[in-house]
Amino acid sequence: MANKMKQINIGLLGAGTVGGGVILVLNQNRDLITERVGAEIQIKKVLARHPEKVRALDASLPTTDKIEDIVNDPDISIVVELMGREHPALEYMEAALRGGKNVVTANKDVVATHGKELFELAAAHHVDFLFEAAVAGGIPIIRPLKESLAANRISKIMGIINGTTNYMLTKMTQEHMDFAEVLKEAQDKGYAESDPTADVGGFDAARKIAILASIAFNSRVGLDDVYVEGIDKISSRDIEYADELGYVIKLLGIAKQKEGKGVSARVHPTMLRKDHPLATVNDVFNAVYVEGQPVGEAMFFGRGAGRMPTASAVCGDIIESTRNILAGCTGRVGCTCYEAKPMLPPEEIISPCYIRMLVEDQPGVWATIASAFGENKVSLKTVVQKRSLGTLAEIVVITYGVSEFALRKAADALSKLAVVARICNIIRVEDSTLE
Amino acid sequence: MANKMKQINIGLLGAGTVGGGVILVLNQNRDLITERVGAEIQIKKVLARHPEKVRALDASLPTTDKIEDIVNDPDISIVVELMGREHPALEYMEAALRGGKNVVTANKDVVATHGKELFELAAAHHVDFLFEAAVAGGIPIIRPLKESLAANRISKIMGIINGTTNYMLTKMTQEHMDFAEVLKEAQDKGYAESDPTADVGGFDAARKIAILASIAFNSRVGLDDVYVEGIDKISSRDIEYADELGYVIKLLGIAKQKEGKGVSARVHPTMLRKDHPLATVNDVFNAVYVEGQPVGEAMFFGRGAGRMPTASAVCGDIIESTRNILAGCTGRVGCTCYEAKPMLPPEEIISPCYIRMLVEDQPGVWATIASAFGENKVSLKTVVQKRSLGTLAEIVVITYGVSEFALRKAADALSKLAVVARICNIIRVEDSTLE
Ligand SMILES: NC(=O)c1ccc[n+]([C@@H]2O[C@H](COP(=O)([O-])OP(=O)(O)OC[C@H]3O[C@@H](n4cnc5c(N)ncnc54)[C@H](OP(=O)(O)O)[C@@H]3O)[C@@H](O)[C@H]2O)c1
Ligand SMILES: NC(=O)c1ccc[n+]([C@@H]2O[C@H](COP(=O)([O-])OP(=O)(O)OC[C@H]3O[C@@H](n4cnc5c(N)ncnc54)[C@H](OP(=O)(O)O)[C@@H]3O)[C@@H](O)[C@H]2O)c1
Repeated sequence: MANKMKQINIGLLGAGTVGGGVILVLNQNRDLITERVGAEIQIKKVLARHPEKVRALDASLPTTDKIEDIVNDPDISIVVELMGREHPALEYMEAALRGGKNVVTANKDVVATHGKELFELAAAHHVDFLFEAAVAGGIPIIRPLKESLAANRISKIMGIINGTTNYMLTKMTQEHMDFAEVLKEAQDKGYAESDPTADVGGFDAARKIAILASIAFNSRVGLDDVYVEGIDKISSRDIEYADELGYVIKLLGIAKQKEGKGVSARVHPTMLRKDHPLATVNDVFNAVYVEGQPVGEAMFFGRGAGRMPTASAVCGDIIESTRNILAGCTGRVGCTCYEAKPMLPPEEIISPCYIRMLVEDQPGVWATIASAFGENKVSLKTVVQKRSLGTLAEIVVITYGVSEFALRKAADALSKLAVVARICNIIRVEDSTLE
Repeated sequence: MANKMKQINIGLLGAGTVGGGVILVLNQNRDLITERVGAEIQIKKVLARHPEKVRALDASLPTTDKIEDIVNDPDISIVVELMGREHPALEYMEAALRGGKNVVTANKDVVATHGKELFELAAAHHVDFLFEAAVAGGIPIIRPLKESLAANRISKIMGIINGTTNYMLTKMTQEHMDFAEVLKEAQDKGYAESDPTADVGGFDAARKIAILASIAFNSRVGLDDVYVEGIDKISSRDIEYADELGYVIKLLGIAKQKEGKGVSARVHPTMLRKDHPLATVNDVFNAVYVEGQPVGEAMFFGRGAGRMPTASAVCGDIIESTRNILAGCTGRVGCTCYEAKPMLPPEEIISPCYIRMLVEDQPGVWATIASAFGENKVSLKTVVQKRSLGTLAEIVVITYGVSEFALRKAADALSKLAVVARICNIIRVEDSTLE
């Protein structure tokens, strides 16, 4: 029977964390995958700079250090790119697509910046270009958005799409640790890189929300279109206030589409109501929350990174492409980002805000502050005064929905007031009851 | 351009709650769907007993009361069955498949009992048989399981897959209402039927877990294979104890596969650790949680019923089939339930348990009870004694993992003890730390 079974050959570019995982999964679950798919999926060649690493995972796998050995091999029908970085990954994928090969990748950098070219090449050659693993690791989200939810007009997509920062914020919330302390712990545990900028600064999440927004809104949201703010300014005081006011602080990627108002995309620490489905997504877990018509609300939860979960998504794409090859319909679902929708300028994004500041602890200060907000057309929902620090008092306000533009004007006016010693932090709030 | 656009014609069987929703969605999101799919999807005929109901939704839609007008119409390529009930829905779908038409349905009764026949017919005619809406309404779960997670060896699938009972248990937990009271409220709000047996008794959830288990384990889990227990015996006392011990009570469908030990499937009220992702799924929301290798944990959350969410899933399937028609690959992903795996007898299912009982409030009673457990090889993790009722005391124990068989023996032995007045309730616990 094995003899008559069709075989689909793969060329694997890179066998590091994720590529190694793919080798393991295709071996460990071989029988199961063969039965489910009706064909044998075989890695035919691995592009590797250190063949000994590949041999350590599976001694039977042939390696090569020449991309031509893979993209020119007529027996290989799927090229799986797991090298990372923009170059030469982009050029290798282009060569593969031009050679009529289906391409599977986990490379969010390339997809976020060169998705359009790659999709066009794939369409021209009637092949698949699949990248489920590029966003939220093992969580099925790209295919559900493009297929299961394809009848929906999506208005909002919002996600915890960086595990490192979610781990850090969870620790800060549950164990009252401070930012520096928890960053060190995350680095020690291997959850954060020695240079943590991409994670902590929100740039990794920005790539992913750009990809999600592009698919959800059938547009082309580039990295430059995403407003980005990291978590480094979040202090344990903010987390305590959030808790008291019924919120948790999460680093969210948020993309919205308002009819006639364009698309917005941003990444920043966000105060989220405790009863929101994303609020209980803790530790390194990721989740993507979607609002659309007719589905209403939906959420997808799981592990956003790591060798095996990410390999799950890559292998899911390999299986998808294999099924398309067997049914003669590769390229079946192509690019759905056919529009160039206008982006809402960040200044026009409206959301409620949390503002923590230090003010003179003296009579009349409230009136002064309230009128500064009022003059700048910022309405206040909640005001909290708790802590006294000598002659200063710490106060916190939650505003109703306010544009970034109006907020900056108000903050500017406030900081010029004699009674305001310092604006300590401003955090956006995601709370539909305040919009 | 609209003239040159290809058109795919649908025959709709039944335009009630969900069918009406499909009519609305295909109209409201027409432009968007046409662009995403590259073809126009048009309802060509509606099978209806009350054509005036169809006209009220869309006056332009032709209706018929003869199934032949649809299954014999060569222009119709997708038949969408939304009549409900087993007959004649089954016969109509069979006729459609025999006529070479793709079939989309939301009918869990038919899928759970006649899935095999329908899949075989679909395979013989190289057409699609899709039923995303049959489980968990708008939540994408069938396609993610069959496609995105296709490389996984699934060990556990566990879901809150009945909205009515989840609403009831949420009210009982958050507002301390009693079962009878909350059932009446759910009926008044239209969340529960006047005859609530299918929901409250767990039978609706049983159909859905049978379908999920079949797909997850590539086997054929029938309705008769599912052990079923409803929520009618859950009292507010149990909910309070659960809370105190760190659990919430949910009606779960649970299906597990242990290598070499077969498959098990059951529906019953379950104590779930508060930190489990399913524990915060409240009100009418549904969610399906999956454990597998390599993905680890994943969860899918959303609305499990209702006109629009269910129509989202049905229209997702219609789009899937349309894309397959356009690419010439209908039947691309067929039945994946190719094995007949042995079912583990319910007596052999092992899980920790919660037991609440009334005992004589006198010295030595603990020793007597503990030894009755011990003699029946049931180990206790937690013992709580709180309430005194005259000469009686209410005690609660949580056991470590115990087989249903051993549990029944122990319960039998306990109830024969003179010091035990009554065993009030036994609830299974889902807690991986106790297994
Ligand atoms: N790790 C995750 O959890 C995760 C999650 C989601 C997505 N991703 C994405 O998956 C991709 C791979 O990530 P990773 O974590 O597996 O990275 P990695 O561990 O650094 O693996 C990359 C592998 O590619 C090889 N490679 C790089 N450039 C090469 C070249 N020019 N020729 C031949 N081999 C080359 C490297 O070889 P050497 O060993 O010789 O350096 C290494 O084995 C990235 O795009 C990443 O963003 C990763
Ligand atoms: N409602 C939900 O939230 C939901 C969620 C998931 C799945 N589902 C499934 O979706 C299916 C439809 O449910 P529903 O809630 O839409 O039911 P429904 O509101 O009762 O609608 C059924 C429709 O089918 C029509 N019909 C029934 N038998 C017919 C026949 N022999 N010939 C012509 N028309 C016939 C009925 O016509 P009349 O008006 O003349 O009676 C009615 O309009 C069921 O399988 C259900 O299990 C429903």
